Amino acid sequence: MADQEPRSRPGGRSARVRRAVLEASAKTIRDHGFEAFAIKDVAAEAGVHETSIYRRWGTREALILDALLDDSAQNVPIPDTGSLRGDLTTLANGLADFLDTPHGRALSLALMTGTGRSVDGIRDYLGRRLSIAGEVVHRAVRRGEVSPTTDPIVVIEALIGPLHFRAFMFHQKPDEAFVDRLVDLIITGTR
Amino acid sequence: MADQEPRSRPGGRSARVRRAVLEASAKTIRDHGFEAFAIKDVAAEAGVHETSIYRRWGTREALILDALLDDSAQNVPIPDTGSLRGDLTTLANGLADFLDTPHGRALSLALMTGTGRSVDGIRDYLGRRLSIAGEVVHRAVRRGEVSPTTDPIVVIEALIGPLHFRAFMFHQKPDEAFVDRLVDLIITGTR
Repeated sequence: MADQEPRSRPGGRSARVRRAVLEASAKTIRDHGFEAFAIKDVAAEAGVHETSIYRRWGTREALILDALLDDSAQNVPIPDTGSLRGDLTTLANGLADFLDTPHGRALSLALMTGTGRSVDGIRDYLGRRLSIAGEVVHRAVRRGEVSPTTDPIVVIEALIGPLHFRAFMFHQKPDEAFVDRLVDLIITGTR
Repeated sequence: MADQEPRSRPGGRSARVRRAVLEASAKTIRDHGFEAFAIKDVAAEAGVHETSIYRRWGTREALILDALLDDSAQNVPIPDTGSLRGDLTTLANGLADFLDTPHGRALSLALMTGTGRSVDGIRDYLGRRLSIAGEVVHRAVRRGEVSPTTDPIVVIEALIGPLHFRAFMFHQKPDEAFVDRLVDLIITGTR
């Protein structure tokens, strides 16, 4: 079956189906939140059969997790500039831009207002995402830029927490000057 | 008139009216958000005349600002422990506790989901509140604990941003170990 082609084949039907389903999933989360997320709506939006989705992702929860991770990777990629300052600055400005879009704002609000069983899924996603972003700190440790005792998760949350705070509490995009001062504080803090 | 007694007279009718109105205002914001906030509802909740509220606060916006600042001061007071580490740790744990209450959660959600004309009021409030909290950094500068070029607002946002992120994105109260690691990073960052 076409759905079982190797995922690595670029532009194949399998890759196209995967992309359509992930984008339809992210849209469904943004538009309706987690509680109302249903595979049948995603299937309709993506123009594929429900059974194709179940066969590939198995559960609703696995699809949500994959869709969120894919959406983050597309919209706020993890940089590798060669320095911790460069990586944190690029990551922060990318996130500030994303939180300033209707898509980024809606997705973050869905994460914040999730309840019940969706909360475990949100935690899984954020845990994975922070761990992926934490790679910029691991690389800085390997380059000898920062103390080996540095906690990557604390560094990443110290960066992205204030950006969410500015975006959602101040209703304001954090400007580059703010990002630079925040990165300065964190870089000094990791020495 | 009773309402015009000096505010400094503790336990006087004026002080009691002020307290009742501020508490009714905070409750109204939590329950209904900013857009629906109306002085007539506050008056009914507090059991005072609308005219008493207008006479004292002048406008709806001035009342909202006063109520938010009063509520913060009551629930998350700004500490003065004698060291920046002590102040930031106390402030962070107090905020983490508050965000873990239905009251704190509802108030923060109201701030985040505010729209239109209420956004200016929310910014005024947060600007004032951050500036009040920034006093812990000014005191540390005067004690020679931190560099005089330290930006108090960045320090305070680096502290409270991640706490909001944990509370609202992770749906989890930040534990004391996380607070300690975050405070460590910030303290080192200000040297």
